[in-house]
Amino acid sequence: MAARRIITGFSNPTVKALRALRDKKHRKRERRFLAEGLRLLTDAREEGHLPEMLVMARGREEHPLLTALEAEVAAAGGEVIETDAEILSKITGKDNPQAVAGVFAEFDTALARVERGAAKIWLVAQALRDPGNLGTMLRTGDAVGAGGLILIDDCADPFSAEAVRASMGAIFTQQVAQARWDEFAAWLRQGPGQLVAASLRDAQDYRTAPYASPCFLLIGNESRGLPEEYEVTCDLRVTIPMRGRADSLNAAVAGAVLAYAALAALEP
Amino acid sequence: MAARRIITGFSNPTVKALRALRDKKHRKRERRFLAEGLRLLTDAREEGHLPEMLVMARGREEHPLLTALEAEVAAAGGEVIETDAEILSKITGKDNPQAVAGVFAEFDTALARVERGAAKIWLVAQALRDPGNLGTMLRTGDAVGAGGLILIDDCADPFSAEAVRASMGAIFTQQVAQARWDEFAAWLRQGPGQLVAASLRDAQDYRTAPYASPCFLLIGNESRGLPEEYEVTCDLRVTIPMRGRADSLNAAVAGAVLAYAALAALEP
Repeated sequence: MAARRIITGFSNPTVKALRALRDKKHRKRERRFLAEGLRLLTDAREEGHLPEMLVMARGREEHPLLTALEAEVAAAGGEVIETDAEILSKITGKDNPQAVAGVFAEFDTALARVERGAAKIWLVAQALRDPGNLGTMLRTGDAVGAGGLILIDDCADPFSAEAVRASMGAIFTQQVAQARWDEFAAWLRQGPGQLVAASLRDAQDYRTAPYASPCFLLIGNESRGLPEEYEVTCDLRVTIPMRGRADSLNAAVAGAVLAYAALAALEP
Repeated sequence: MAARRIITGFSNPTVKALRALRDKKHRKRERRFLAEGLRLLTDAREEGHLPEMLVMARGREEHPLLTALEAEVAAAGGEVIETDAEILSKITGKDNPQAVAGVFAEFDTALARVERGAAKIWLVAQALRDPGNLGTMLRTGDAVGAGGLILIDDCADPFSAEAVRASMGAIFTQQVAQARWDEFAAWLRQGPGQLVAASLRDAQDYRTAPYASPCFLLIGNESRGLPEEYEVTCDLRVTIPMRGRADSLNAAVAGAVLAYAALAALEP
């Protein structure tokens, strides 16, 4: 069994440093983020992402996957910490924390790393402000077999605890890239790719639109939608019918409805 | 112009009572809930829901819709309060509060009030725990022209601030009912209605399933899905394809993907 460091005090510097990862400024300086839960950490490990530090609650149930994870983290030179459930709860900010959390190095989110040929569908979000929506889009991307999520302009932080949690592990399976609009538009036109705008205006019906692979589905900001000057440069503008009073869907919902329509068209 | 009461202190009893509406226990005792934002309050008014109390921030921009709303609230015997933006922020719990909030009487959520013939689609959620998901499902229901949302077993409170906010006004346009499973199942069989389970098991493809009106789309709990004994009593079990590592979608996303598939089938 690997050597574990035991931490018992709330004021321990490691606890303070871990808690600080919930703050974006601190997270960006450290280039580290937190992910919780055995299932999520196991998914991460199977995708080749080992935490640099593993934090386990005392009194947890033993589990072979956790034992294996602990051994791998230790073998890779990572640190294994055991602490009270209350302290883990303080670290993760959840009342009912998972029994284990890991500290990961943030990934490189350069657009140049995106391999557009790796998937038929890519999700693209512009000025998406809600980290829960961001994580939910990652989760949906995994579900439709998308390659990843490209974040345009000022979006929520994909490494925030809320986004990681909502992604249900997809933060480790989906590629994530961040870029300004001009940079993205230039990159896109360097290779194959159909850019599809989810439009609030009266555009083509999303169910019958001619989606083509690789298909980049672009969803706009939660309250403003896409800027019109972005929309006009897209190859296709599609609308989801709205039969009620409201004129828009939740951004993550709109992304999912489009993504499943594109999946049905591209892999019938 | 209506008489306004001006409140300036955080410790004012009205401020305390309004803040307490964020707490479920207090909300249930008072049978009142808070909704924010001029657009949402205007939607409510057009649907026949006037707030009993209107709380406006000082320094807000004047708006004809707000003036009209204020006059109607006063004419109906309601109270109009003017306060500081900071106090309104305390009341709503938001850093950037809307300029206006209203206190509404909770609606009757008895199942007997649901008019099943009023719409082709109804959303039904079982043990849905996240108020954001609940509000998002209301918003989606509005978008597909659904009749409303039926909440089965122990769900989040539809009148919580988070659910009301995420509904984007659909709390006022969609019917909301709450029932235990047995009560719902008995009610459903008293009239026409196809009960469709969103299944995590290998069921019929959701895209080609024979949806029939009125169609009740049943979505299970965020982590456990639907109990198997509920699923087996459904008329139809449908699955949304999962092409990645994850075995489920976010509950509100699953509801939306199904609702749009049903809409396409029932109103092609």
